[in-house]
Amino acid sequence: MNKNSSNIMALAPNTSNKRETICIFGTGDFGRALGHKMIQSGYPVVFGSRSTQKSSLIPKDAEVLSHAEAAQKAAIIIIAIQRQHYNFLTSLAEILHGKVLVDVSNNLKINQYPESNAEYLAQLVPGAKVVKAFNTVSAWALQSGTLDASRQVFVCGDDMEAKQRVMDIVRALGLTPLDHGSLLAAQEIENYPLQLFPMWKFPILLSLCLTAFFFFYCLIRDVIYSYVYDNKDFSFFIAISIPNRICPILALILLALVYLPGVLAAIIQLYRGTKYRRFPDWLDKWMLCRKQLGLVALAFASLHVLYTLVIPIRYFVRWRMSSQIISQALNNKTEPLNNTYVWLSDSYLALGILGFFLFVLLGITSLPSVSNNVNWREFRFVQSKLGYLTLILCTAHTLVYGGNRFLSPSSYRWYLPNAYMLSLIVPCIVLVVKFVLIFPCLDKPLTRIRQGWERNPQYSE
Amino acid sequence: MNKNSSNIMALAPNTSNKRETICIFGTGDFGRALGHKMIQSGYPVVFGSRSTQKSSLIPKDAEVLSHAEAAQKAAIIIIAIQRQHYNFLTSLAEILHGKVLVDVSNNLKINQYPESNAEYLAQLVPGAKVVKAFNTVSAWALQSGTLDASRQVFVCGDDMEAKQRVMDIVRALGLTPLDHGSLLAAQEIENYPLQLFPMWKFPILLSLCLTAFFFFYCLIRDVIYSYVYDNKDFSFFIAISIPNRICPILALILLALVYLPGVLAAIIQLYRGTKYRRFPDWLDKWMLCRKQLGLVALAFASLHVLYTLVIPIRYFVRWRMSSQIISQALNNKTEPLNNTYVWLSDSYLALGILGFFLFVLLGITSLPSVSNNVNWREFRFVQSKLGYLTLILCTAHTLVYGGNRFLSPSSYRWYLPNAYMLSLIVPCIVLVVKFVLIFPCLDKPLTRIRQGWERNPQYSE
Amino acid sequence: MNKNSSNIMALAPNTSNKRETICIFGTGDFGRALGHKMIQSGYPVVFGSRSTQKSSLIPKDAEVLSHAEAAQKAAIIIIAIQRQHYNFLTSLAEILHGKVLVDVSNNLKINQYPESNAEYLAQLVPGAKVVKAFNTVSAWALQSGTLDASRQVFVCGDDMEAKQRVMDIVRALGLTPLDHGSLLAAQEIENYPLQLFPMWKFPILLSLCLTAFFFFYCLIRDVIYSYVYDNKDFSFFIAISIPNRICPILALILLALVYLPGVLAAIIQLYRGTKYRRFPDWLDKWMLCRKQLGLVALAFASLHVLYTLVIPIRYFVRWRMSSQIISQALNNKTEPLNNTYVWLSDSYLALGILGFFLFVLLGITSLPSVSNNVNWREFRFVQSKLGYLTLILCTAHTLVYGGNRFLSPSSYRWYLPNAYMLSLIVPCIVLVVKFVLIFPCLDKPLTRIRQGWERNPQYSE
Repeated sequence: MNKNSSNIMALAPNTSNKRETICIFGTGDFGRALGHKMIQSGYPVVFGSRSTQKSSLIPKDAEVLSHAEAAQKAAIIIIAIQRQHYNFLTSLAEILHGKVLVDVSNNLKINQYPESNAEYLAQLVPGAKVVKAFNTVSAWALQSGTLDASRQVFVCGDDMEAKQRVMDIVRALGLTPLDHGSLLAAQEIENYPLQLFPMWKFPILLSLCLTAFFFFYCLIRDVIYSYVYDNKDFSFFIAISIPNRICPILALILLALVYLPGVLAAIIQLYRGTKYRRFPDWLDKWMLCRKQLGLVALAFASLHVLYTLVIPIRYFVRWRMSSQIISQALNNKTEPLNNTYVWLSDSYLALGILGFFLFVLLGITSLPSVSNNVNWREFRFVQSKLGYLTLILCTAHTLVYGGNRFLSPSSYRWYLPNAYMLSLIVPCIVLVVKFVLIFPCLDKPLTRIRQGWERNPQYSE
Repeated sequence: MNKNSSNIMALAPNTSNKRETICIFGTGDFGRALGHKMIQSGYPVVFGSRSTQKSSLIPKDAEVLSHAEAAQKAAIIIIAIQRQHYNFLTSLAEILHGKVLVDVSNNLKINQYPESNAEYLAQLVPGAKVVKAFNTVSAWALQSGTLDASRQVFVCGDDMEAKQRVMDIVRALGLTPLDHGSLLAAQEIENYPLQLFPMWKFPILLSLCLTAFFFFYCLIRDVIYSYVYDNKDFSFFIAISIPNRICPILALILLALVYLPGVLAAIIQLYRGTKYRRFPDWLDKWMLCRKQLGLVALAFASLHVLYTLVIPIRYFVRWRMSSQIISQALNNKTEPLNNTYVWLSDSYLALGILGFFLFVLLGITSLPSVSNNVNWREFRFVQSKLGYLTLILCTAHTLVYGGNRFLSPSSYRWYLPNAYMLSLIVPCIVLVVKFVLIFPCLDKPLTRIRQGWERNPQYSE
Repeated sequence: MNKNSSNIMALAPNTSNKRETICIFGTGDFGRALGHKMIQSGYPVVFGSRSTQKSSLIPKDAEVLSHAEAAQKAAIIIIAIQRQHYNFLTSLAEILHGKVLVDVSNNLKINQYPESNAEYLAQLVPGAKVVKAFNTVSAWALQSGTLDASRQVFVCGDDMEAKQRVMDIVRALGLTPLDHGSLLAAQEIENYPLQLFPMWKFPILLSLCLTAFFFFYCLIRDVIYSYVYDNKDFSFFIAISIPNRICPILALILLALVYLPGVLAAIIQLYRGTKYRRFPDWLDKWMLCRKQLGLVALAFASLHVLYTLVIPIRYFVRWRMSSQIISQALNNKTEPLNNTYVWLSDSYLALGILGFFLFVLLGITSLPSVSNNVNWREFRFVQSKLGYLTLILCTAHTLVYGGNRFLSPSSYRWYLPNAYMLSLIVPCIVLVVKFVLIFPCLDKPLTRIRQGWERNPQYSE
């Protein structure tokens, strides 16, 4: 879909020398890649290097000079060298005075140094205008033109005009500059490319733990119990039957955990009588990863749907069905249609289908491009109203699935309840508390608190 | 996926006082939230308030002064008070002269006042440059940093330079400004956050009506008829069987209604001999909600797929199958393979699968981020060529499903045809008319008309 | 979802005459549509035309003058005439001197002329500042306000200030300008709206060829062989059974072809000892269409899932199952549960489900709006790590499906192996080579090469 058109375009060097000369300090991999790209976009490029011996890797149209000479030729200097070697720049302080220095460096670890590389650079050369940019783009992507990951270049800097000039260059290179404010943001920008799905860590860790727990729980109840008491080998349950127990359980629990912090926050706000005091830290963090929790829940729900739909294709299920039919035929006995079973089976499937359908809708509206086209009221309608409806349908699906087995003693092998019963605890709590919070005696004060009203307004001074 | 990075970044106050001071009139919820965010982004903030007593809720780094004093400290003043209280601003007219006033207000109803709040403000303080902005962002989202819904801030105003300055502030706050032109757009911008899926209302209402109609239609034919004549209780059909009849019917009808207005428009253009006269209003509105109609149709089609795929898991279906097999075994009679049935069954399923597959493709290409990466020719190819192919496949799927039952009298219980027969009316009309329009004798003039040619060109004067 | 709000807004003409007058040369379809839109956005518009007779189609608020008169009234002139008629502009060279000329023209074929229309215009009127813009927007979309396809307007031009002014107009019209650099990009911009999925051509062509090959292969093995030897008519296999053989085969082969170029590139880099020499052209092109190859593979995989899930609903499958059961019942013989079959059947299904699930995840992360919110490291993690895991799972799925049939002679009808065996060749090669490349003795030098190290560094001079 994305045709990378903006990269392919304007590949030929722009001969009209209207663009200002850019100086690049450092002839390493990234410096060369950036130089190539700039020459392609029509910028004259001068490299500043310790050795002015010209490597064949340096773009042909670029000059290579000493640092001092190169710096004098341009008003914008890109510092494509590693932080450890920044020291020598102090000796060039006079030449660099008033110039725009673009820090493109990255670190190897998050928060490796007390201050960001860009701030360190600004301290070393106080007379220069330091701008942080380009660190989120990879050399390989610049060179090959396959900027699939992201065209976004985060830019920050204290000098507005310098930042603007750098953003113009970013734009001319076919990338999208995003202004992130003052140089204080540099630390965050430098950490950004080192992150690996930071918001996803907690949801994925949590679901891995729950998966492990329920896997062993089901293994004990379904495989080991049968082996011990009936001496039957159901070890093949590990492939499909047990995953198809774990997936719906995790989907339901994680979905309930999406709505639990909202309910807790409401209780806290009601208790405190104000919305202006910060929530405890764990609640804040929990609220920020609700979207990710919901998407992991959706992934489990999708797997559950796939596992369920292949049931009739499984050899074991076909074998069991045909041997049941044969034994009935041989005994000349037909089982009558049990109307209760029909109703339970059909309504449990129907609830599951509707719940999953709404769940997928929620997932689609959380796609960035869709949620960007939705106003605040619409977003809240979808994520709150439809979300609770999904939770209700999925909980009902599990309850009806249980049917009248909740009280049957055979459901408690080794005194362990069926795994799906455990999965109902959190969603039922969330739904009951939410139901209580809907009553006007609680809903009205809550609405007022959320509009800024306070039970005990405090004025300082 | 969206890591809200731009909000998290630059949280520390910017000490370098390079950013201009912003004045905020009003210390209500929204004013405070905006003030917080601005201080975080490095703007010095002065609040103008009736009482200069400083509430603990007001950000610590902000000053609170009287309105007049505060206004004098800044060139940009954010009016975070309700429209009803705008009157007092007339008394400050002299101080506000030449200043940029940013109207952030929202109303409670769409088109609540004859003119927009921003235009009303511009009338009250004629010497000021009024810019509308920030009304689409919620206070809660600003405060909590979870701008999931939308980072877009619609901005409009008559003074270009004032608008530009406000857009710079929006950008510095990590939001995306969208220029909506002159202050005349303020009415629309104020209505925007009050909308609840305006383009979706007609498709959803239509599908609800059709759903209700077909539900009772199927209830009569499938449940009540069986109960009256055969005294059989098929009430459990309500859970899955009847929904699985309604969903494909609605999907097909709604999909046909997506292409009907295009066909009507072609007929009207051919008849009029020009494309420059406006279509009737209902047709215009219909054409604008085609995408939504199509997506609702896709939702019904997806439900139909899910309902169909669970068929073999249903207790009723298993029971019916096993009792059929048992009765055959007991009667020692095996049914031979009916080749016609095999062909009908397999080709009806294959057509359905291919139709649904193309339908999902159409749905994916209508995602904003995908359609943004597609040029006009590609978009038309997908939505028109692939769209008609989808309609043909889905209609054929329904026709083959009917098979040779169309003429069988048992299909007409109480003289009511099967519901799926009704669903074929609209798509067949659309396909026949479209087929006729493809003939060169009609297609050629139509193409010329659409390129701007007119049968009876009219020159005024 | 996309409510076209920016188009609907600001429909009323802006009476405040702050916007500069725009001149449009040419009163054709596109010129008029653009004029309409500009008047709606508050720009005074003057048309330049051969005949100053005012057609009723021209917006009422626009003046129509001779070319020379119209040009004098505005600093920005939109050339909405076809390239063939550009010649007459030379006679206006004096009046056009210093003006901004906006070339909006499109051609009928890709690379129709040696130089782009905009460059040709710049040669004809050397004193003017030529900017290319608006050619990607359709007249119909401008007029009807349904800019579903794309709001993006590609802009290029040599004069920075002229380009900026045109981009401001684009923005004021509710469209999104994208700066594509100097006028050299005009050729690409003019080709853009003529493209029809250029990156998709190779993947789709390849998959069509493979589909045809495997279709006839399966036809011979499954239908013709049975007809010749057993005189059984299995022609109905064409509807579902054969497609359900072709789809997984193509999905697996295409998925392997996504990862093959990366493996080849690694081998080439290791052999050459440098990353700075260009890959052969075919490899470059192959690497650029990997995303499209993967999405086509995903489409085939999705079809395979649908075809597989409808298996138990097929009349043929039900008939075969019931006749097997009946014959068993009549012979009073029950088949015992074969534990090996149970394991093979369940693990093959489980591998398929997990592989498809990861495949869909990969597809979702390749959506432009999702991949834009992901940094480079995360993108590589998903597309490389998860991608290889998907390939491993899908290959294992096919291997387990084969089970112990690989060596059975009945699998080789007419000495032709089963089609799925052919599909395993490419993925197995890719996985084996990738496995070899993971060994430290190869992985370490490769990593160093990719960080810019060279085995034989060459210095020119």
